Amino acid sequence: MTQEYPSRALERAVDEFSQLPGIGRKTALRLVLHLLTRPEQQVQGFGQVLTTLKTDIRYCQTCHNISDSEVCGICSNPKRDAGTVCVVENVQDVMAIENTMQYRGVYHVLGGVISPMNGIGPSNLQITSLVDRVKAGGINEVILALSPTMEGDTTNFFISKRLADTGVKLSVIARGVAVGNNLEYADEVSLGRSIVDRTPFV
Amino acid sequence: MTQEYPSRALERAVDEFSQLPGIGRKTALRLVLHLLTRPEQQVQGFGQVLTTLKTDIRYCQTCHNISDSEVCGICSNPKRDAGTVCVVENVQDVMAIENTMQYRGVYHVLGGVISPMNGIGPSNLQITSLVDRVKAGGINEVILALSPTMEGDTTNFFISKRLADTGVKLSVIARGVAVGNNLEYADEVSLGRSIVDRTPFV
Repeated sequence: MTQEYPSRALERAVDEFSQLPGIGRKTALRLVLHLLTRPEQQVQGFGQVLTTLKTDIRYCQTCHNISDSEVCGICSNPKRDAGTVCVVENVQDVMAIENTMQYRGVYHVLGGVISPMNGIGPSNLQITSLVDRVKAGGINEVILALSPTMEGDTTNFFISKRLADTGVKLSVIARGVAVGNNLEYADEVSLGRSIVDRTPFV
Repeated sequence: MTQEYPSRALERAVDEFSQLPGIGRKTALRLVLHLLTRPEQQVQGFGQVLTTLKTDIRYCQTCHNISDSEVCGICSNPKRDAGTVCVVENVQDVMAIENTMQYRGVYHVLGGVISPMNGIGPSNLQITSLVDRVKAGGINEVILALSPTMEGDTTNFFISKRLADTGVKLSVIARGVAVGNNLEYADEVSLGRSIVDRTPFV
């Protein structure tokens, strides 16, 4: 369908929104027309936040998580166990694990997983800085918490090779059936893993 | 679920995106993290477009469509039939009808339909300016092209009452479009037919 916009300013705004993932031109138009119904100050505020977004947001020098300062709130928290490092793919995963309230260690954000299909190799990820961190000492355990996919497994394997000579304890998050699901709906691979990796009851 | 963002700047950006219709906090976070992977100049450009959005976009003084100038491209086009006015709800509807290539008249954008549930009365819409436009003369026919919903029908009825003493020919788009759907989602063939097959109102 050809879309002829009645205004260049409108078209520019639609162009910008439709470049976001999962947002097509029709949704983008709906978002822009919604913004036009909002007070000018609010829309300007939105614009300001985006204009300064890349300069306002910094990354923790230790764990590479998004941060407001040079060292993030988790790395600088003395109550966290700095001897346990949980390796995750991205910021969302840190937030997901934090929400479980089950983890008191620190993190290392890789920034992705090895994925030759998408042109992402080990050098695009924060793997060398993880190895340096472990070699610097003070770390007892590295927990691999990447997605249980082909890419995640490949990355786990690569990291385990790089850390092999450091002698650090290496573990991977448990794979099994999801809590709350009926067993009959679990996929065969997860169910198989949950039997092989069974743990002592109480 | 509690969401604790690792950075205030990140949270501010997520707040802004999640105020858009149909975008929750999880999607908003995904959009912001996507923006962080883009070059700084692009993200700044996006911010600039939003900052000046409300001042850049103007509305046609005649038909109230979005425009870059005081009179929009359709109203100022001498090839369009200024004696036929198509009354629509919003900008998307103008674009949808333009895309059918079946209409050579001009428009009148109401800015909505009468909807007491949402607190939208006749005074919130460009109805008086439509009546003034018809009374000023030079208009032979007014085509009502509102969504075939309860609110659309109510608005059609209200406009027909207000225009009753002007003697202008009043027609309504054929109900070739499925009743209950919003106009902007109608397919082009049905929408085109509904304009060609317009019938006298009442």
